[in-house]
Amino acid sequence: MSTVILKGNIIHTPTKEKFEIVPDGYLVSVDNEIRGIFTELPEKYAACPVTDYGDRLIIPGLCDMHLHAPQFVYRGLGLDLQLMDWLDTYAFPTEARFQDLSYAKIYYEAFADALAKNGTTRAVIFGTIHVPATELLMDILEEKHIGACVGKINMDTLSPDYLCETAEQSLRDTKQWILDTKNRYKYVKPAVTPRFIPTCSKELLEGLGQLARDFGLPVHSHQSEDIGEMQIVRERFPEYDNDGDVYDHFHLLTNQTVMAHFIYPTERELELVKERGVTIAHCPQSNGNVAAGIPPIRRMLNMGIKVGLGSDIAGGYSVCIFRAMAEAVYLSKLKWLESGKQDAFLTIPEAFYLGTRGGGQFFGKVGSFEPGFELDALVLDDAGFTTSADRLSLEERMERIIHLADDRNIVARYAAGEMA
Amino acid sequence: MSTVILKGNIIHTPTKEKFEIVPDGYLVSVDNEIRGIFTELPEKYAACPVTDYGDRLIIPGLCDMHLHAPQFVYRGLGLDLQLMDWLDTYAFPTEARFQDLSYAKIYYEAFADALAKNGTTRAVIFGTIHVPATELLMDILEEKHIGACVGKINMDTLSPDYLCETAEQSLRDTKQWILDTKNRYKYVKPAVTPRFIPTCSKELLEGLGQLARDFGLPVHSHQSEDIGEMQIVRERFPEYDNDGDVYDHFHLLTNQTVMAHFIYPTERELELVKERGVTIAHCPQSNGNVAAGIPPIRRMLNMGIKVGLGSDIAGGYSVCIFRAMAEAVYLSKLKWLESGKQDAFLTIPEAFYLGTRGGGQFFGKVGSFEPGFELDALVLDDAGFTTSADRLSLEERMERIIHLADDRNIVARYAAGEMA
Repeated sequence: MSTVILKGNIIHTPTKEKFEIVPDGYLVSVDNEIRGIFTELPEKYAACPVTDYGDRLIIPGLCDMHLHAPQFVYRGLGLDLQLMDWLDTYAFPTEARFQDLSYAKIYYEAFADALAKNGTTRAVIFGTIHVPATELLMDILEEKHIGACVGKINMDTLSPDYLCETAEQSLRDTKQWILDTKNRYKYVKPAVTPRFIPTCSKELLEGLGQLARDFGLPVHSHQSEDIGEMQIVRERFPEYDNDGDVYDHFHLLTNQTVMAHFIYPTERELELVKERGVTIAHCPQSNGNVAAGIPPIRRMLNMGIKVGLGSDIAGGYSVCIFRAMAEAVYLSKLKWLESGKQDAFLTIPEAFYLGTRGGGQFFGKVGSFEPGFELDALVLDDAGFTTSADRLSLEERMERIIHLADDRNIVARYAAGEMA
Repeated sequence: MSTVILKGNIIHTPTKEKFEIVPDGYLVSVDNEIRGIFTELPEKYAACPVTDYGDRLIIPGLCDMHLHAPQFVYRGLGLDLQLMDWLDTYAFPTEARFQDLSYAKIYYEAFADALAKNGTTRAVIFGTIHVPATELLMDILEEKHIGACVGKINMDTLSPDYLCETAEQSLRDTKQWILDTKNRYKYVKPAVTPRFIPTCSKELLEGLGQLARDFGLPVHSHQSEDIGEMQIVRERFPEYDNDGDVYDHFHLLTNQTVMAHFIYPTERELELVKERGVTIAHCPQSNGNVAAGIPPIRRMLNMGIKVGLGSDIAGGYSVCIFRAMAEAVYLSKLKWLESGKQDAFLTIPEAFYLGTRGGGQFFGKVGSFEPGFELDALVLDDAGFTTSADRLSLEERMERIIHLADDRNIVARYAAGEMA
């Protein structure tokens, strides 16, 4: 039995309403199953070694629910271009280069290192259309102990020639890749990943829905992100007035589905997503960068829709999910104004919940320290943010970390029950 | 004669339209006056020592046009409170503590260190109402070579008792403080700093306008930031329909004035600010954090209004002006949407210009490397952002730094002609 006991100031959000904080507590996990948080170490663990992190904070690992691994190449670039110019200048030519495995290796290593260093223990990731590079990405994530759902992506229409597959080839490659990888890893698994509706024919969407069902796999894509994108979908599928019904028609909306953005949902689409148990990946940095708009996160939370946070590299430029938490609150304040002060803005505990347990529930019992949950944890050192005159509560220290932390503040990381 | 010659990849924005880039160039300054950027070192400087920064980038120092030094104490805290709760919980009680000089010393040292470390070479800063603490702040900024306009602030109405002055006392203290400090420093000078119209009586505003004129001093305050604030001003001054006319009535709008925010200007107020030569401090992080709204920066630039960037600590939580550049572009994209795609969003060179030369012009010949300008410069190391496979232009490297840099990337800093 592998018992891990961490001592420190323990902070998590079993519910989104408030932080649960145990100062100077013991977090006990046995074989990657949390047994509890204790103020005194129970007798039965007396013989087990305790890692004492002193006055540091111990929180759940961060979950990044939507990002594009190949786009790490050009994160922080072209951010004053219009979306289509940006895709043509950066996204498509870069993704094409991932047929070269030596190129892929350089960037996928850098990408996975950046996630690990920034405290992301779980992620839902787009690769490219290329199977070998996508398998390399999965190998690298496994090696760094990042629990990830990874997609070989699919696109057979409205795409540049050099990135365009036929539906038949795309489905054949995807099926073989699923067979080859679905049981290969401990931390990583394949996800069915249509790029988005505009780049997928009906035949391809049909086949991908079938593969997701046949193999019981997660699905990952973009939904109702942008007025231009939605117009294309309306023209292709005039029988539906929203993206959700199109995905649903092809059986791609399930409780194992993650959909990014969801900025302009219809009422019907909100209900559908809730009913199917879809998780929405809210990517606040990207929403502004690509000038898409502000999603109604408060409404989704009020309805009980599952929501997590995503960096959306490289629509977002920062891989840091603390940044996404801060920016989710920021953007929700602009939404509050936009809604005539109807949609209350997010609280700090809510933002924290979204970046940990909100996304984590997609992976199972992940994202908080409740009994029975997996042990994904970060140890945070905020000494650099404080002075001798500070009298901060642990909740305030946590809020400051959300706003000011970078990789330097993450001093230890545990993934799926082990130090990583 | 003190000659400084820096060699590296030199980047600046003499105009806001584009970067001017000299790869592997020589930047020459004699007695804090830039003589030029050269691709070959002119013969007459052949005997002078050259500091060779290799492949690093050399850019002008950053200008932070609006921030509150005492609020550094609680940066990153209370960011899910409503504005008035936030002021009552954090701002006012904290500012009150600055009558204790030992408390002030701890935080003002930390504040000035944070500015220096993050590449801010010039700043326009609110202190508190307390003269001794404000002088201590000025001493500390001088010691760190930060070129700053600093204000003992004034408030004699609508303020908590423990922070409220009488107009008479406030004016007497302010005059004495001006006399004591106006010639004391090389880098630092006093600025007349009414907190904002709601906390200043007519008598106080009148007196401050007189002091600014008598001593030819800069003025620093907030203008048209928030609907609630503006309503108070409309009620107090029903003869004017905007904040600008009120300030102007008291002679507080001059070409030495910095006004923060300017989110809801009237047409008349835009014209007035342009005519008077006021500099607007745009604080994008704060605009969202305090749920104030999005200022029409594109319209101001089109009109030729002077605009710089501010961190607005602690309405903003990050002191880093690179962050303000990235967020100015981000916010301008949401403004583009809000304006029905009328107000074009900011470009990267424009954002860079705002954070350097746009603010810098307030201080004189500051913010770029044009001949005759002062030498404020940063040396940037971006090696951590690149891989062996990158083929980035200098412009792309600069854009990535704007989005991803933190204090680790600033490896040297020059202020007013000297290494600082």
